[in-house]
Amino acid sequence: METIQSNGYNIYFEDSLTQLVKFIEQGKYSRSFVLTDENTSVHCLPLLQQYLGEDGNYDLIEINAGEESKNIDFCVGVWKMLIDFGADRKALMINLGGGVITDLGGFVASTYKRGIDFVQIPTTLLSQVDASVGGKTGVDLDSIKNIIGTFTQPKAVFMAAEFFKTLPDRQILSGLAEMLKHGLICDAAYWDKLKTSDLSLPSLELVHRSVEIKNEVVTEDPHEHGIRKALNFGHTIGHAVETYSMLHDSDPLTHGEAIAVGMVCEAWLSNKKAGLSDAELAEIVEVFGKLYPKHKIADDSYPALFTLMQKDKKNQGNKINCTLLTRIGQFSIDNICTEDELCDSLRYYTTL
Amino acid sequence: METIQSNGYNIYFEDSLTQLVKFIEQGKYSRSFVLTDENTSVHCLPLLQQYLGEDGNYDLIEINAGEESKNIDFCVGVWKMLIDFGADRKALMINLGGGVITDLGGFVASTYKRGIDFVQIPTTLLSQVDASVGGKTGVDLDSIKNIIGTFTQPKAVFMAAEFFKTLPDRQILSGLAEMLKHGLICDAAYWDKLKTSDLSLPSLELVHRSVEIKNEVVTEDPHEHGIRKALNFGHTIGHAVETYSMLHDSDPLTHGEAIAVGMVCEAWLSNKKAGLSDAELAEIVEVFGKLYPKHKIADDSYPALFTLMQKDKKNQGNKINCTLLTRIGQFSIDNICTEDELCDSLRYYTTL
Repeated sequence: METIQSNGYNIYFEDSLTQLVKFIEQGKYSRSFVLTDENTSVHCLPLLQQYLGEDGNYDLIEINAGEESKNIDFCVGVWKMLIDFGADRKALMINLGGGVITDLGGFVASTYKRGIDFVQIPTTLLSQVDASVGGKTGVDLDSIKNIIGTFTQPKAVFMAAEFFKTLPDRQILSGLAEMLKHGLICDAAYWDKLKTSDLSLPSLELVHRSVEIKNEVVTEDPHEHGIRKALNFGHTIGHAVETYSMLHDSDPLTHGEAIAVGMVCEAWLSNKKAGLSDAELAEIVEVFGKLYPKHKIADDSYPALFTLMQKDKKNQGNKINCTLLTRIGQFSIDNICTEDELCDSLRYYTTL
Repeated sequence: METIQSNGYNIYFEDSLTQLVKFIEQGKYSRSFVLTDENTSVHCLPLLQQYLGEDGNYDLIEINAGEESKNIDFCVGVWKMLIDFGADRKALMINLGGGVITDLGGFVASTYKRGIDFVQIPTTLLSQVDASVGGKTGVDLDSIKNIIGTFTQPKAVFMAAEFFKTLPDRQILSGLAEMLKHGLICDAAYWDKLKTSDLSLPSLELVHRSVEIKNEVVTEDPHEHGIRKALNFGHTIGHAVETYSMLHDSDPLTHGEAIAVGMVCEAWLSNKKAGLSDAELAEIVEVFGKLYPKHKIADDSYPALFTLMQKDKKNQGNKINCTLLTRIGQFSIDNICTEDELCDSLRYYTTL
């Protein structure tokens, strides 16, 4: 599979960890720092060590796993460890993990001494097809996702299917939602291919096409002024559902599960407001219905969900801006939706 | 006085607050947020209000005055206020204050929702000639100055002499040290002019020349890879002296007072290592001796001072990199100094 060229950096698919070793040698870094969480330390670090060696070629910084770690307190912890290790401006940070590690690690690196180099090794399907491409870094504050962050490109991204072979099914489904989104917004043929593939463990070829699509969008619009908003399809409602679930459910939705809910709701809005046909809506509902368990959205949660949508950083003032589909494979940005319309779409989802 | 064009933004000197009003109108911002500290709220905000109006044209965010506020906890406080006020991506942050406000406010703005626009209204002489130009934002962590931050340019800078007319003498002297540095590193004629001027209240013309010099350096090298290091003259030792004083003295040195100590020490190093003549060293010592009170540096503080120099973000590994003078008006970067040399320069200062 071809290396994908993004905004000034490469995304490697073939022999990617060999490429990482080359990259480090050529970069003449003063020191490497590998950021992991307690899961990737166990499941992913051993593979990395086969390439980097174990004998003091790098320092390890480990944080707790999970979205709860994605906050400023953990950034302070990592910054302090970098200080204690004596990391200078020529240090390299290697983020080995899912989206929490790549987002937080990217933010820490982009602000430590006003910015040191970092590379991403995304270890979940979701982070491979989403968080690792596009140069967004960030952490949560007050339960608002990614509200603090920077636009900073990594120096390289290294993809390896080995990492997600042992992922739990729900984690696979989480990444798959973003892949389905890429088909829906930009590539009907890819959507058709996904529909007919064995999706219990997506191939690296499918990942490659998703990364290509996302990369095309973000390199054209790195700071999200225009077409990058395409990627928000399903996310206006999905992010709110995700945050609400994190605050209220004992076993919260994954990102992709929440986005899947959001995509069904926003497909309904697309049908009402943007020209998506009844047949296409039915097809989308069917595909998601087969893959994802039904999520219960209580009527009395609508006001809280709407408040969360208002706080989403992509919205200006009180207007809720949605990216919708005009048909499968084609998006339309900046569709202003009212509170009533958004609540109706949630109601539609609950009737399915 | 001419407007100075920096890296994609203007630095206004004439009718600058009228220019600010125009800037805000043209920017079509959703909302303005003025960041002040308890001092600038009293001494500087009233003037700003004459231009912006008082009747709800902006929201005010005030933090405690002083370097102790320049940390992540205060950033979190300001980020949360922005969230509570509903600040979106088209919000504008107006930083009204000294270096703490412009550095912290710039960092908060550059990371809120991955970056909103901000402008600087530096209200101290020091921040006018130093912090407001160059696109550095940052806060301290673990007593290490500016260790966390970004390179982000403001959208404009507005200079007004009115603000520093009421500054205490020590604050004037603090800014003056940076102005003298600009002469020493780049412009012997400006150094001569400063020597013979009434420096109890430097004119806005002198400020203008300092900003010109700093601007020339930083626009050529925005990310501090090369000649921007010129601005570090006096700062390797000065920053360590400043931090040590902050930690140990009941009435700590100002930034400029510490940098003045650093410049005398580094002028001595320049004489030993970089070709500065004995006569020039004597002249520099005389000028600083007349303006700045002698600071006591205890012998037993040398190891701690050296450790602080090692932690400075500009140093790589264990090497201490100094910017020195080859003569008055000309600098030389990347002079590696040993611990012995640095301690000898401190000893020299104490013998004066």
